[in-house]
Formats: sequence, C-alpha cells, structure tokens
Amino acid sequence: MSIQPLPAFEPPYVMSVFTSVRTADDTGYPETLARMIEIVRENPGFLGYESARTPGGLGITVAYFRDHESLAEWRQELEHQAAQKEGRATWYESYTLHVATVERSHGFVRNG
Amino acid sequence: MSIQPLPAFEPPYVMSVFTSVRTADDTGYPETLARMIEIVRENPGFLGYESARTPGGLGITVAYFRDHESLAEWRQELEHQAAQKEGRATWYESYTLHVATVERSHGFVRNG
Repeated sequence: MSIQPLPAFEPPYVMSVFTSVRTADDTGYPETLARMIEIVRENPGFLGYESARTPGGLGITVAYFRDHESLAEWRQELEHQAAQKEGRATWYESYTLHVATVERSHGFVRNG
Repeated sequence: MSIQPLPAFEPPYVMSVFTSVRTADDTGYPETLARMIEIVRENPGFLGYESARTPGGLGITVAYFRDHESLAEWRQELEHQAAQKEGRATWYESYTLHVATVERSHGFVRNG
C-alpha cells in the first residue's frame, strides 16, 4: 500500500489546518487520537484527514469537511472538547488552528 | 531555537495547502526550493509558510498570503511555473493543492 495525498474534493468545502509542536509527554495520546478518528468518521460531513510530522519538529494535520455546519458539530462534540483540553494540559507545546473555505483545488498523480 | 507553528494571522487571509509524496529523485530539489523561498519572500502579500514531512511518507506545506491577488502573483511567477513543471517531471509522485480563505484562527502556546 503506497501513501497518497487525499484527492481534491469538489469545492466549496471546509478545511481545518492544525499546526503543532508536541511535548515529550505521550500519555494517553495514541488512545485518544484513535478515539477521535472513530468519532469524527461518524460525522456525515467529514471528508477525510491527513497528517505529517517532521521528527522532533512541526506536525500538520488537515481535516476536510463538506460545510461549516459539519465542522461545527465536530467542534462541539463533548469527547472532542475534553481531548482538546487534555491536549493543552499535556500533549502540545504550542499549536495554531486555521479554519478556511476551499475555493479551488486540483491534484496530480504520476502516470495517473 | 525551538520550532514553533506560525501564529494565527488576522482573518481573512488566504492559505494554500500542498500535500505531496516525493519520488526518490532529489536532483535540483534543494536548490530550487531555496530559490522559490527567496522569490516568494519578495511578494508583499506573503505572510509565511511552514512544512512537515513524515519520513518516507506524506509532506504537507502550508503557505499564507494576505489576499488572493498576492497568491495569484505567486502562481503566475515564471520561475515558479518552471519549478512546478519540474516538480511534475521529477520530484513528485503525487500531490494535491487546496486554495482557501481563512475565516477563523487561533493559537495556543504553553505558558504563553
């Protein structure tokens, strides 16, 4: 299985970009991440997410939603809010969140 | 010097998200990247960029611009267009570009 970027979706859609630097404390992180992915996939407007992290450096996670209503539901989800709080207390040194509407997108695949 | 995510800018601003998987061919890539950064910094509407790559996996680069006009200038820049062409020929297995207007953003810094 080879890794691929998610394809371009049909605009307009909503994109949240979460850039972060982690602390050294991983306590509970993998389990919470797995649970968050499980919950967000139940959201009918969730289109997908992808993530990259330079070892010891910056992480970027991009999540895609059909519309702002779907993202708002995710934002207000109670387990997600608890996880955000735990993130500030334990897992993140710093982060920034950018919420945007995508107006244009395209993709390229070699020999595709 | 510790790595930090770029801070939230004052909305609205424009964000391009470039997700990619590289080929094994690095020929000319570092030089071209350095030159592209040099050029884009001359754009008065360029706010900054940040990048993360999981080793052997997905890379995500986010660039921030004040407005769509600034991004359009960058998109039409001739050396940049040549670099994009070289990217498809040599450096990228696949990529997706999402261009969006940021409506909301915020940041967190531990003890900040």
